Amino acid sequence: MGRSKPRCGAPKMSSSALGHHAQNIIDRCRQLARITDVPGETTRLFLSPATSEAHTLLLQWMRQAGLEGRIDDAGNLRGVRLTADSSAPRVVLFSHIDTVPNAGAFDGPLGVMLAIEAIELLNGQSPFAVEVIAFSEEEGIRFGFPFFGSMAATGQVVPATLERRDSQGISVEEALYGFGLRPQNLAKSCALAAETFAALEVHIEQGPVLEAENLSLGVVEAIVGQSRFELTFTGQANHAGTTPMRLRHDALAAAAQWVTEVERYAANYEQLVATVGQLEVSPGAVNVVPGTVRATLDVRHPKDESRHTAVANLLTKAELAAAQRGVWVSAKAMSKQAAVSMNRELTDALQQAAARAGHKARAMFSGAGHDAMILAPHVPTTMLFVRSPGGLSHHPDETVRVDDIETALGTVLEFLRGLRPPDR
Amino acid sequence: MGRSKPRCGAPKMSSSALGHHAQNIIDRCRQLARITDVPGETTRLFLSPATSEAHTLLLQWMRQAGLEGRIDDAGNLRGVRLTADSSAPRVVLFSHIDTVPNAGAFDGPLGVMLAIEAIELLNGQSPFAVEVIAFSEEEGIRFGFPFFGSMAATGQVVPATLERRDSQGISVEEALYGFGLRPQNLAKSCALAAETFAALEVHIEQGPVLEAENLSLGVVEAIVGQSRFELTFTGQANHAGTTPMRLRHDALAAAAQWVTEVERYAANYEQLVATVGQLEVSPGAVNVVPGTVRATLDVRHPKDESRHTAVANLLTKAELAAAQRGVWVSAKAMSKQAAVSMNRELTDALQQAAARAGHKARAMFSGAGHDAMILAPHVPTTMLFVRSPGGLSHHPDETVRVDDIETALGTVLEFLRGLRPPDR
Repeated sequence: MGRSKPRCGAPKMSSSALGHHAQNIIDRCRQLARITDVPGETTRLFLSPATSEAHTLLLQWMRQAGLEGRIDDAGNLRGVRLTADSSAPRVVLFSHIDTVPNAGAFDGPLGVMLAIEAIELLNGQSPFAVEVIAFSEEEGIRFGFPFFGSMAATGQVVPATLERRDSQGISVEEALYGFGLRPQNLAKSCALAAETFAALEVHIEQGPVLEAENLSLGVVEAIVGQSRFELTFTGQANHAGTTPMRLRHDALAAAAQWVTEVERYAANYEQLVATVGQLEVSPGAVNVVPGTVRATLDVRHPKDESRHTAVANLLTKAELAAAQRGVWVSAKAMSKQAAVSMNRELTDALQQAAARAGHKARAMFSGAGHDAMILAPHVPTTMLFVRSPGGLSHHPDETVRVDDIETALGTVLEFLRGLRPPDR
Repeated sequence: MGRSKPRCGAPKMSSSALGHHAQNIIDRCRQLARITDVPGETTRLFLSPATSEAHTLLLQWMRQAGLEGRIDDAGNLRGVRLTADSSAPRVVLFSHIDTVPNAGAFDGPLGVMLAIEAIELLNGQSPFAVEVIAFSEEEGIRFGFPFFGSMAATGQVVPATLERRDSQGISVEEALYGFGLRPQNLAKSCALAAETFAALEVHIEQGPVLEAENLSLGVVEAIVGQSRFELTFTGQANHAGTTPMRLRHDALAAAAQWVTEVERYAANYEQLVATVGQLEVSPGAVNVVPGTVRATLDVRHPKDESRHTAVANLLTKAELAAAQRGVWVSAKAMSKQAAVSMNRELTDALQQAAARAGHKARAMFSGAGHDAMILAPHVPTTMLFVRSPGGLSHHPDETVRVDDIETALGTVLEFLRGLRPPDR
């Protein structure tokens, strides 16, 4: 008890060179999290009042970092630190600032705050311009449609998207006007600068892999492709007391066998994840043999061919599990999305930057979608993952470790310092 | 086209001796089915207006059969055909006339109509009195509590039962008063006559066993015991894309493995049925690994010891399936009910009566509960099952075959003709 202790209320701060910058990134994320459309939680929707307030705060931080800010006509907040040569090559650092309902503080904002901090630290010492983009709509909550901001920046917004309506009946187009934007100018106002030669997104992992391996950082090689299906098992509802086992057509027994096979198959297939997340039993009475089961299947793999093989095998397994019980099964494709590879050279450069900064970054893939996958086909793009304690995201308890943020910041600085624009 | 055909509109009727009596039983069941509390379907609840109307019709048919009718203070409709000796031994033929919502015409009424027809055919030619009882409440829909009628007849109604309330807030006691009955007289008015030495319920099988074996009749040796449990599997909800298979604690995968083991175990255990009828997944999103699953287990066997063994083994299997995945499982007993054996001598007599009438009756157990199981501990009781086409019951399409009813009627007549009261 006689030892000296830090004084109560004194800020905890890493003692290393970047420690207080890491802490500043975290503090800013937490400050932004208090700007919300729903008091008492963190919920910031696309083009909402809270988003406008967030823009004001972020523009201030951008200014401090020497960035010139603007809001493009998709509602993306962008800050550029130009060089003397106005047509100099450009690097884009990006993530998003919209949230899911009742979100945490780091999913999205971390990448933006870290970018601003890095640019302030870099202080113009680079042979290229740097742009920070806080994309306006990644989660897709308000209009049930994700990635609006990054799709606008890559010229992918189609007229039908502008006609989508939120739960209040307001269209995307009306919401853009209401925010003071000009949807007719989307293409021109939002397009990434032609000089952009590299793009980097820093994001929390939103999964448990880095934590399980006790690592701070992951370098993303690919964002997985996804296939989603809805399966319906149709057997026959019967009295649970009067129907002997051999005369049953139990839809749940068939579905259950299939669920265990989905789990086993994916566990034995490198990099595959397969999930039955919904399963509804009808009639759903304690004393009635289930007649119908509706279940969903979500399959993801970084290689499309592997995913297609897995899907085909898993649907066959459903048919076999059903047939054994005189149950019918039908499967309906709900959605699919191809895998997106990150740029190989940039990913290698990021890996090497981490090593130079003295850190180990695990090569990995992203099981979730990100704006990086929208940009990747249009501009060389890579992505850095930061450990998610507890694998937690989309939850108010979502957090990050200050030493991981320091590690990430050091790696991004090394990446930017080592980056050379292509010959012109 | 030149052949003669039955004239349009001519009634179809079996050509054998009992054929038109069988048809009459079916016609009366269908006529009763039109008396309903809910127009357009067959729904007759305990002490309802439709029940009162049904009593009026049934009293008329009872009178035609030489039965003297009354309604006891539990709302049971009873008709007695006495002999010259007012203290003569008595046989009771019974079933029920309340229904589930949107019911068929035969579950319950068949046993009552067949009893009335048999007594009319017997025409007093027996050395005992015969009573028909149409129990008032077997299904337990109105007050969420089955077997009120037969429990009243065997002195088992406790005060708490009279205090149960229906969805309108009306208590059993108030409903009895409202029907013109005197609940304070239950014991005296409802008790089975002390002279009763045998009781027989005829009922549709409500299952597929007789149909699968191409038989008309089953003689019930026991009504199974039941155990019901609710299990909760608690794992961890996680992102379906970012959580590798090896780091999951998937509550549904654990529950699914257990469901398949329940099925397999019961299939390999003589006379056992085990059913998972409800299964609810939480959070239940296509892209979220299930964190919690709530499931029910219904286990039935004609021997209590076998049922207890099965339950213990199935709960252990749930624990193992959960433990393999770092999932917790808890089990809560919801209800249990001991198996009830039918009277051996009466059951043999019924079997022999079928044989004398030229029919084969399969010895079987009942997987569903019946008034017979309430009476059995108090008076020698047996039960005759009649084939359920398609195994269907509790459904408007519930039906019977006229030849099966003829077979059942012939068997019951033989049973009554062969029955000898005990020496007094």
